[in-house]
Amino acid sequence: MARQKNTDPKNVAKVRDTRKVVPSAESIFQGILKGDTAALSKGITLVESKSSSHTDQANTLVELCLGQKTASVRIGITGVPGVGKSTFIETLGKNLTALGKKVAVLAVDPSSTQHKGSILGDKTRMPELAKDPNAFIRPSPTGTSLGGVAGSTREAIVLCEAAGYEVVLVETVGVGQSETMVHSMVDFFLLLKLSGAGDELQGIKRGIIEMADAIAINKADGNQLKMAQLAAAEFQRALQLYPPKENGWVPTVVCCSAIENTGIVPLWDIINDYITQARASGYLVTKRKLQNKQWLLQTIDTHLKLAFYGNKAVAATLKELTEQIMENKISAFRATDLLMKRWKKELK
Amino acid sequence: MARQKNTDPKNVAKVRDTRKVVPSAESIFQGILKGDTAALSKGITLVESKSSSHTDQANTLVELCLGQKTASVRIGITGVPGVGKSTFIETLGKNLTALGKKVAVLAVDPSSTQHKGSILGDKTRMPELAKDPNAFIRPSPTGTSLGGVAGSTREAIVLCEAAGYEVVLVETVGVGQSETMVHSMVDFFLLLKLSGAGDELQGIKRGIIEMADAIAINKADGNQLKMAQLAAAEFQRALQLYPPKENGWVPTVVCCSAIENTGIVPLWDIINDYITQARASGYLVTKRKLQNKQWLLQTIDTHLKLAFYGNKAVAATLKELTEQIMENKISAFRATDLLMKRWKKELK
Repeated sequence: MARQKNTDPKNVAKVRDTRKVVPSAESIFQGILKGDTAALSKGITLVESKSSSHTDQANTLVELCLGQKTASVRIGITGVPGVGKSTFIETLGKNLTALGKKVAVLAVDPSSTQHKGSILGDKTRMPELAKDPNAFIRPSPTGTSLGGVAGSTREAIVLCEAAGYEVVLVETVGVGQSETMVHSMVDFFLLLKLSGAGDELQGIKRGIIEMADAIAINKADGNQLKMAQLAAAEFQRALQLYPPKENGWVPTVVCCSAIENTGIVPLWDIINDYITQARASGYLVTKRKLQNKQWLLQTIDTHLKLAFYGNKAVAATLKELTEQIMENKISAFRATDLLMKRWKKELK
Repeated sequence: MARQKNTDPKNVAKVRDTRKVVPSAESIFQGILKGDTAALSKGITLVESKSSSHTDQANTLVELCLGQKTASVRIGITGVPGVGKSTFIETLGKNLTALGKKVAVLAVDPSSTQHKGSILGDKTRMPELAKDPNAFIRPSPTGTSLGGVAGSTREAIVLCEAAGYEVVLVETVGVGQSETMVHSMVDFFLLLKLSGAGDELQGIKRGIIEMADAIAINKADGNQLKMAQLAAAEFQRALQLYPPKENGWVPTVVCCSAIENTGIVPLWDIINDYITQARASGYLVTKRKLQNKQWLLQTIDTHLKLAFYGNKAVAATLKELTEQIMENKISAFRATDLLMKRWKKELK
């Protein structure tokens, strides 16, 4: 008990050497296994930590959780602000917990690192789900561990799975590269849209439509229903012009209303079909293995770039050379050569 | 004259120290300025050279050419094998030289590095254009300078422009990342397609449609004409579902027949409109500056990765760790940490 008290996160700030007071990876892991949400939150905070003194602990915790065999479903959900993501996730989540499933909601929100406020950080966006004992909602981190987006969302997914959450919903607003990141960490990628092919398209980035495994036209209710149905038909036609996905899956377009709870269960059935097929064919296992490999390469890439561009002398030289290349005054190869030499000098 | 003889490329292979026999960047540059196609070919060979003893020369030549003010148009052309790229480029090229324009054709063909043969390397694919004194056709390089695709196509463009070619057509078969590469080095990106939304879509990679500034349905002749027109209408509808391009350009879909020379001149008019608008608004200048900057960052990225992954100890460690991460046995952060440490040890 005395040890437990020392590891209370409230005490951490008062102690100089944080290495001594963070609970051990093993003790957090045991808490997570028991389904203790406080331990899960603590674990996610640990893997999100930017402090190098936490790195080893965090890696150990992730590896302990990776060792757990789970049969979770990872679903990415994206859509521009105003499309109704919160209400959609709340309704989907409530339907899933009603089916007896444990649901975790994570958010990838790069805006929270750029601005002080976070678009997705607020638990009160999903008041019903937040109260549900079978749901776990994690507000988006206040910072990322690596300067990039979603520095530790993959690790958070693994922790949630070890805690017994069978469905992990990963939500993103789609700023920067966040959609691509989320797409590369989930089994199924869902794009929420509104009817009316006009203004709201402005907010959608190129390439997103091609990533989607399903498109849900949300707010298909009241006098919007007809328009939503037309939009769905239009999208379904358009999707036929795309090349088929590698697993042969043909993306589906559905209408739904998160407020009226219509179309959500049929959508879940579609996701379930996809997962069942992908499990049976072995595609799901292969996809996750490749995602793991890709994640390693991406993490290496991030670290390499941090080491290089984070060097002050390199950064200063790059600034000069960028101006020169924009004005056609130097070749890219010469500029690169100069930069690599500068860096090697720094490394010595 | 004696000096000239020494620099004859036929003699180069016989001499040990190639540094002494490559003609100076300045002399190649003077030849290029005079419109001497032999000098232009020699210059492109120089910038394509993988020999580090040529690097400085090549960079100097590129920088001399960069200093030339030109008003060229750079057009990327892609499409799956069988779509009729060669005939299309030949017909477009002949129309342009008939308008008094000088036309250069470059190819980005990553297959030429993977296999011995090159899909786009053969000049006889465009027999008419090859004979045209106002056209310059450069077969794709037999290797790339940096292990990636299109290691020096940007530099080849700059050399062609200095040689007075007003239209540079950059052709790609779309293997690997080549379309993205070509898209990032041209002013206008054209996708060639066939009618019949079936099998031929298999060959088109995701994301390509979104990159296109225009889609031309080729082989719109004979009994295919009707189908081509239907396909064009379908694509035009589908494109409206995409977000608009950053410059406000709405991609156009046209039908053409390279064999019957129909639709090609109207397509050129569309490209011309685009360029005229982009010049007037300043978008073209901005776009090229950003492309230059992007090219620098990409070149740095390639070099950083070559240095890292090219290290034997790193490569061996990576192989082991990749197997571990695919089996969920190690966290990506731990694996990266181990690799970075291994590399730093190597650098010492």
